[in-house]
Amino acid sequence: MKVFDIPGFPNPLRVRIVLAEKGLDSQVEFIKIDLPAAEHKQPAFLAINPLGTVPVLQLDDGTNISECTAITEYLDNLDGEPILTGTTPKEKAIIHMMQKRAESELVDPVGIYFHHATPGLGAALQPYKSPEWEGRVDWGNRQRDRAVDGMKYFDYVLRNQPYIAGEQFSMADITVFAGLVFAGFASIAIPEECTALLAWQIKVQQRPSVKNPA
Amino acid sequence: MKVFDIPGFPNPLRVRIVLAEKGLDSQVEFIKIDLPAAEHKQPAFLAINPLGTVPVLQLDDGTNISECTAITEYLDNLDGEPILTGTTPKEKAIIHMMQKRAESELVDPVGIYFHHATPGLGAALQPYKSPEWEGRVDWGNRQRDRAVDGMKYFDYVLRNQPYIAGEQFSMADITVFAGLVFAGFASIAIPEECTALLAWQIKVQQRPSVKNPA
Repeated sequence: MKVFDIPGFPNPLRVRIVLAEKGLDSQVEFIKIDLPAAEHKQPAFLAINPLGTVPVLQLDDGTNISECTAITEYLDNLDGEPILTGTTPKEKAIIHMMQKRAESELVDPVGIYFHHATPGLGAALQPYKSPEWEGRVDWGNRQRDRAVDGMKYFDYVLRNQPYIAGEQFSMADITVFAGLVFAGFASIAIPEECTALLAWQIKVQQRPSVKNPA
Repeated sequence: MKVFDIPGFPNPLRVRIVLAEKGLDSQVEFIKIDLPAAEHKQPAFLAINPLGTVPVLQLDDGTNISECTAITEYLDNLDGEPILTGTTPKEKAIIHMMQKRAESELVDPVGIYFHHATPGLGAALQPYKSPEWEGRVDWGNRQRDRAVDGMKYFDYVLRNQPYIAGEQFSMADITVFAGLVFAGFASIAIPEECTALLAWQIKVQQRPSVKNPA
């Protein structure tokens, strides 16, 4: 298997933690895509993922899988013993619900804020931004505020249960964790009053897969 | 089981088609939420889904599942014989990849265009919109253009395979179909040159679950 990504970036981190959780690190060859140079928006990469996003998992038969949830479903089910995506219908449902919320309430608003309301990754990506969004401070701030609201929501969730989707660590925890990494990158701080979220963050940081992702 | 939704709306339609595909229609009680009156933004409903969206599936043990992908995972796996979400790791991955694309490239831009760049569902929902977005014709048109680009992408996909995720009908077909219903609602027409998408739409319309959703 090959993974097209760039080390240290939030969505690539999600898949690299999954690979470490599943012990699949050694089975993957990583191919670095130069995001600041907009390599992911050029024809060669768009042939691999027409949406121009990383990471992409390329199977040995040439099939390209993009979107972290899809990649996680593949990797987690490969050995027939899923540990991150649930086993019962109810577990699957709650994990997918929280996975979607982790994206819509945290990763996505941080990403929109970072790429459109700050200098983001720099000049080469400028043509791929929405020009009418540039400099719209009110709109950019709203995305930042939405990300902070997302942090408060996950703090609320974690006041009643140890992990984002309940009693067990799941892909939804990985997504929230990567969302917080991304927020740090965009200089969006976790509110001090989010004590449950901050304690959970420290706990997750201590997992071997998070300390040493693929 | 209970489903909180409103008949005829795009995301509720997704779950109602799933219920019909799985033959679960008779096991569900539907509770209508008055979206044009902003009932989904009031405390009683926010206790069921803090994100204030429909549909929500309420299990008999009181668990509330929101997000169509999560609800579909639950309903499709309930009898141990999934027909809409894949069985092999690769099937699951491709279906989840295309499900995400159906949302990000079609349902989401149509929704943003409809709710923020047109009068949408009317005055009661106005306070829940982003005020700085109102009347931003350039931004609204870009969302409409993104939805049309999404149609062209799915047309391209369907030129090489019978269904959105490959050889078999899946939840990704349901999502694209509902996205096109939503687009019609928002007066965004399918380009005439999207002949594969238009032929697929007619084929999907003939499925019993689509003719007679729950």
